Amino acid sequence: MKILSVNAGSSSLKFTLIELPSNNKLISGYFEKIGIGNSFYTIKINGEKLIRQVDLKDHKIAVDYLIEELISNKVIKSLDEIDGVGHRIVHGADKYSKSVLLNESILEDIASFNELAPLHNPANLIGVKAFMEALPTTPMVGVFDTAFHQSMDETSYIYATPYEWYQKYKVRKYGFHGTSHRFINKTISEYLQKDDLKVISCHIGSGASLAAIDSGKVIDTSMGFTPTPGVVMGTRAGDIDVSIIPYIMKKENKTIDEVMNDLNKKSGLLGISGISSDARDIQMAIEKNNHQAILAFDIYTQKVANYIAMYNNLLNGADVICFTAGLGEMSRPFRKGIVEKIKSLGVTLDEVKNEETFGTFGLISTQDSKIPVYVVPTDEELMIALDTYELIS
Amino acid sequence: MKILSVNAGSSSLKFTLIELPSNNKLISGYFEKIGIGNSFYTIKINGEKLIRQVDLKDHKIAVDYLIEELISNKVIKSLDEIDGVGHRIVHGADKYSKSVLLNESILEDIASFNELAPLHNPANLIGVKAFMEALPTTPMVGVFDTAFHQSMDETSYIYATPYEWYQKYKVRKYGFHGTSHRFINKTISEYLQKDDLKVISCHIGSGASLAAIDSGKVIDTSMGFTPTPGVVMGTRAGDIDVSIIPYIMKKENKTIDEVMNDLNKKSGLLGISGISSDARDIQMAIEKNNHQAILAFDIYTQKVANYIAMYNNLLNGADVICFTAGLGEMSRPFRKGIVEKIKSLGVTLDEVKNEETFGTFGLISTQDSKIPVYVVPTDEELMIALDTYELIS
Repeated sequence: MKILSVNAGSSSLKFTLIELPSNNKLISGYFEKIGIGNSFYTIKINGEKLIRQVDLKDHKIAVDYLIEELISNKVIKSLDEIDGVGHRIVHGADKYSKSVLLNESILEDIASFNELAPLHNPANLIGVKAFMEALPTTPMVGVFDTAFHQSMDETSYIYATPYEWYQKYKVRKYGFHGTSHRFINKTISEYLQKDDLKVISCHIGSGASLAAIDSGKVIDTSMGFTPTPGVVMGTRAGDIDVSIIPYIMKKENKTIDEVMNDLNKKSGLLGISGISSDARDIQMAIEKNNHQAILAFDIYTQKVANYIAMYNNLLNGADVICFTAGLGEMSRPFRKGIVEKIKSLGVTLDEVKNEETFGTFGLISTQDSKIPVYVVPTDEELMIALDTYELIS
Repeated sequence: MKILSVNAGSSSLKFTLIELPSNNKLISGYFEKIGIGNSFYTIKINGEKLIRQVDLKDHKIAVDYLIEELISNKVIKSLDEIDGVGHRIVHGADKYSKSVLLNESILEDIASFNELAPLHNPANLIGVKAFMEALPTTPMVGVFDTAFHQSMDETSYIYATPYEWYQKYKVRKYGFHGTSHRFINKTISEYLQKDDLKVISCHIGSGASLAAIDSGKVIDTSMGFTPTPGVVMGTRAGDIDVSIIPYIMKKENKTIDEVMNDLNKKSGLLGISGISSDARDIQMAIEKNNHQAILAFDIYTQKVANYIAMYNNLLNGADVICFTAGLGEMSRPFRKGIVEKIKSLGVTLDEVKNEETFGTFGLISTQDSKIPVYVVPTDEELMIALDTYELIS
């Protein structure tokens, strides 16, 4: 069975065609600058990468090119061979706690959550509709970033804000990266052959969130109503004092939207360092003894360590800590910095294994570490395909 | 030596006259509704309490009544007997890490921090000036709520916001309740006869903050740039997702100041429960099985537990946990709720001792608790008097 795993943004479209149950990735691609000029796309197949400049007026045109590439590259002979399309959808609000087969009425329902994720949900739906037009008889599945976290209890998801805000406007913690955290939990639980595992999943990429998971149920997660709070990220501030907002609005004569933009796009590693949102650039600046870069590293690693300590207590002792996503899979110094800051949990890093592990699955703690620490590469595309496979089988 | 300990608000003035070094409280009083009509004051002396309705046009008039009461109650014979006045000042910015003898130039300096604490600092200064007029030759001392936390490292006080906000506008974590946390640290360190004690100080009253203290140095604290963030409070939200602010502004067509007011005055225990900011009211509603009251209790105690776990890791294992202020000293169920949520630290409550301890110093954990838990009644007035005594001696 061949499943397309799709992630549509407002001006982009990522896809991977996956053969199941072998999990073999046949072809993947990325369409960029759809509808805004100078558009192009990249195709990866058999280890090769092709870039094509084309005019992508809208997502529908991108889907047409996509299908053409599948056929011309002989990945499929006809459209019938695409057995299903799984779509990443950011926000399922408090209604979707699992992936669903999409139809018109469910799409309307999802559109009603648009104001909870104004940058993402409308774009995700444009993607779904483009595929529905091109492949009208192929089943479409929605896989929500928020779904896994719907298992949280209200003690974790209710804010100490006026309760009417929750009742009237759905203000609560949703959490994001749910598909990734679910994949990590599934992978490590299968590996350790334990269903009732207590996992601290650290998805630390340019966006970053942690989740405390007990027996497949999310106990707490660090993102919130939106992806802004929690640990420090590439350009997002994470947890800060809300009172900074009115103060900066007055000081810089800015609107609320401008300050929110600063907190989402100009903060985090970029904000502290003044250099870059990319951990590799920070690392290079640290080697030159740049004060703000060192500070960015210290603050970033400390905030992740703080959440690990908090979640270890929430789980009454975690069985395993997992690192995933960009920094988690590939930044040896960031992983080391974090593990050194959770000494009180009896966790110790195996420095050799940490050096050897780069984008691959592996244990990076010592044999006598009280909690084992694993690097588990995430694969949201595969998780989306697996959900689709399961729902259409 | 007799020292007046003073806390002036915008329409209030609290004082206590303390004999030192005996720490004997001779008289205390509270002037309310100064300058806003229906003003009155309360005097406590020899276990008695008197209320007087008087016209308090301004703080200067209140100070005149205060002095009259000291003399008519024969606490002092003449003004010369007041050896010093210690003033609570909320914000010392990043300049004052200790209490100081006040003079005109220092008062100007403090006034320059007014925008960091617009509700408090100007009022504190009005109090200082009223006393300077009434007692022109008596030494005045400023004791800052932020001073103790100035010992924090930048890893704890720098936010992951644009670094220029720190450089240009002093946006950073300051922390508050510093005088109380310092008093708790001093009291427990003296009691346990250990200078290099690692303390988690939980000041949980209607305002609430935690501090992690190692050998008298603050490692981190839960309030921030302002007293809004951190744990849940009586009416303050504590840590939330900043993105809730623009969302509510749009939904309720409110200004930023109106939403900030909601987050400071209508949130916390009051916001979740919809009943009251007072733990005793919450407790009563819980006994009637009120869902939102139970939720308020569970969230409140969980957030304090989260911070304790985080701070235990930051301290690489705390030596002692202290509860103080309204809830910390007097709410047996809240203390119990918190301690039950830090099981992973090996902390266990002695239920009998917890029941017996109400507003008094005492151990409330079992003998085999891995970290002992004490109730330590706070005394900011005494701490202010002690600082004043030391600076003028």
